[in-house]
Amino acid sequence: MVISKSMEALVAGSSTIRKLFEEGLQLAAEVGAENVYDFSLGNPASPVPAKVTESIKDILAENPDSYVHGYMKNAGFDEVRANVAANLNKRFDMGYDAGDIVMTVGAAGAMNCIFRALIETDDEVIAFAPYFGEYRNYAANYGGKLVVVPPDMDNFDLNINELDALINPKTKCIIINNPNNPSGRIFPEETIKQLGAIIEKAEKRIGHPIYVLADEPYRELVYDNEVVPYIPSIIKNSIYIYSFSKTLSLPGERIGYMALSKKMDCYDEMINAMAVANRCLGYVNAPSLFQLVVSRCLDEGVDLDFYDRNRKLLYDKLTSLGFKVVKPQGAFYLLVKDPMEDEEEFVSLAKKHHIILVSTKSFGCPGYIRMAYCVDYEMIKRSIPAFEALAKECGL
Amino acid sequence: MVISKSMEALVAGSSTIRKLFEEGLQLAAEVGAENVYDFSLGNPASPVPAKVTESIKDILAENPDSYVHGYMKNAGFDEVRANVAANLNKRFDMGYDAGDIVMTVGAAGAMNCIFRALIETDDEVIAFAPYFGEYRNYAANYGGKLVVVPPDMDNFDLNINELDALINPKTKCIIINNPNNPSGRIFPEETIKQLGAIIEKAEKRIGHPIYVLADEPYRELVYDNEVVPYIPSIIKNSIYIYSFSKTLSLPGERIGYMALSKKMDCYDEMINAMAVANRCLGYVNAPSLFQLVVSRCLDEGVDLDFYDRNRKLLYDKLTSLGFKVVKPQGAFYLLVKDPMEDEEEFVSLAKKHHIILVSTKSFGCPGYIRMAYCVDYEMIKRSIPAFEALAKECGL
Repeated sequence: MVISKSMEALVAGSSTIRKLFEEGLQLAAEVGAENVYDFSLGNPASPVPAKVTESIKDILAENPDSYVHGYMKNAGFDEVRANVAANLNKRFDMGYDAGDIVMTVGAAGAMNCIFRALIETDDEVIAFAPYFGEYRNYAANYGGKLVVVPPDMDNFDLNINELDALINPKTKCIIINNPNNPSGRIFPEETIKQLGAIIEKAEKRIGHPIYVLADEPYRELVYDNEVVPYIPSIIKNSIYIYSFSKTLSLPGERIGYMALSKKMDCYDEMINAMAVANRCLGYVNAPSLFQLVVSRCLDEGVDLDFYDRNRKLLYDKLTSLGFKVVKPQGAFYLLVKDPMEDEEEFVSLAKKHHIILVSTKSFGCPGYIRMAYCVDYEMIKRSIPAFEALAKECGL
Repeated sequence: MVISKSMEALVAGSSTIRKLFEEGLQLAAEVGAENVYDFSLGNPASPVPAKVTESIKDILAENPDSYVHGYMKNAGFDEVRANVAANLNKRFDMGYDAGDIVMTVGAAGAMNCIFRALIETDDEVIAFAPYFGEYRNYAANYGGKLVVVPPDMDNFDLNINELDALINPKTKCIIINNPNNPSGRIFPEETIKQLGAIIEKAEKRIGHPIYVLADEPYRELVYDNEVVPYIPSIIKNSIYIYSFSKTLSLPGERIGYMALSKKMDCYDEMINAMAVANRCLGYVNAPSLFQLVVSRCLDEGVDLDFYDRNRKLLYDKLTSLGFKVVKPQGAFYLLVKDPMEDEEEFVSLAKKHHIILVSTKSFGCPGYIRMAYCVDYEMIKRSIPAFEALAKECGL
């Protein structure tokens, strides 16, 4: 092997996912794409707001090319950062200014900048299961390791009672993904307050800040008027991380940002390090045209009905068939309890019925499968007979 | 300090550059922007080809948004990769196919993917001085270190005679930046052949491949019909790295690619690792719209005259004033020998005349300053009296 040991592990892990993807493609080739019900990927299917395309055209017409496509500060265009700050202040009254915002290559880029800045070899990042599997890889890039708080299998709330025992002097960050991928749960303000108290106490014990990464690409995707608390207004040492991938349906454009509050410990050191990390990790800056685009689309929203009718149809149908389903409050994922002994076996059985599901083992939460319902409503309707047959075969 | 030790060093290094930049801005505020002659930055000033803007409009009109802005494979759109491969084959007859190309977040993104894949802690990457200072940071991201071959101060050719002694079992890559930033030199085919022979012998000695990273964002920026050899056709274990930043004047859009030849050692392992690294480093994929844009602009060229008349004016004028100048064959940088004892002192003196220059100490090549001539021709003309005064003050 010429590649490094940690890369070897990553490539091996990736092959499993690719295998699933390729099996789905092969199945589509065999039985026709319209007869395959693929719930595996979080690729948003809701329409891109018209304002995005309009903005691209207006920006190109109104500005010199050298501005639109040129270099700017590593943290992004000052005027874009000022607009993002104003938008956050309007919603959360945080008193941000342009200098507190760093435009990033999506939320993944923001998280890599933070880990690059904070992690020494063997440092630890804590995530609550179920968690987005890539967190582990982001930490491993810099020699860090992910420490996982076991899931609360009853309510899929944050299992904060088990947090304190996992914090030690190597702990640098705690990730909170709200609304959560894959559970679709929203962690309420009361839980975040309790979390903050535990962290503050632990910081005194270990003698350095523990930064909470509020990873919130699904913030606008909430149903039934649920409220997502703004973590940085509750926990001082928080970094807000946002991506426009889901809200504007732009996952391929790689555009997001992070916001640091001047109230956090070591603010100056942190904000400087973020811009430097953005440069040194080879992002250099978030893509320039799309910085300008999102700056004009900060108030654009996703068509919630698009996802909500999928959510209702799937939840009601699967529940009526006897599946145990965690009702999602936000995002576009749904957890279904494995009705068999082993979720890999269940995934295989579903595939026989042309349904592509993902086991939540890699999310640190065995015993469930994840369904991404950011798909076409008609596909869900077509899939119902297959789910009926699957339920029968599972003895439900 | 809450940030890691390696980040601390990066931030400290960055402040020096930022200081220079901010001093330039302050000077412009004091004496007027038109009276400041800033040769510090490599931000291309030549026009963006009209085809770029046309392509953006056409792509938006011809395709569904979900395709233009959506996720694709981590390595990029298959059809874009096929076009890039065909374009390379037309020019260099390498027999690439789409699967050999990975679309990246610029050349910096490509290099970070390669280092992420190959570097174990304390592994070494070799660069020939003078070299682009960011190489050191890219290697440091993954615990690697940059080993520098001292410059050939007579001809600014690759100092290949000193290479072999620096190769050891920890050596993973050798970077060749051709045409070179900051010297503007083109390394000829004969030198690359000799380099290949040294590396092949060293690979047998140390028992594993040493990958040559052919970092060539300036390939199209060559003067007087000079020829840039295509390294992967000469050295088997080469990775071609390209960015559209300079040729299409799109540095802010972060779009480039790497090409791996099936003839290289451990090809399968390497090409898989590149796609996985692209994902795990948080790039996920190169920005989607601009993948589609560059795919339509592969034959677009930069306006060479734009830079060539700058090159000629500066070279002739500075030479006639008694400065010792390395004549650039490519790129848009020019090295001037420090006529004083200490180049920092020379940079300070130049600033008194409102000329902003960069010392090449951070390029591993003390005793020189770098001028980026990717600037407005009129600015150079306006700067001439200042250079005349500077020459006089230096006793030339």
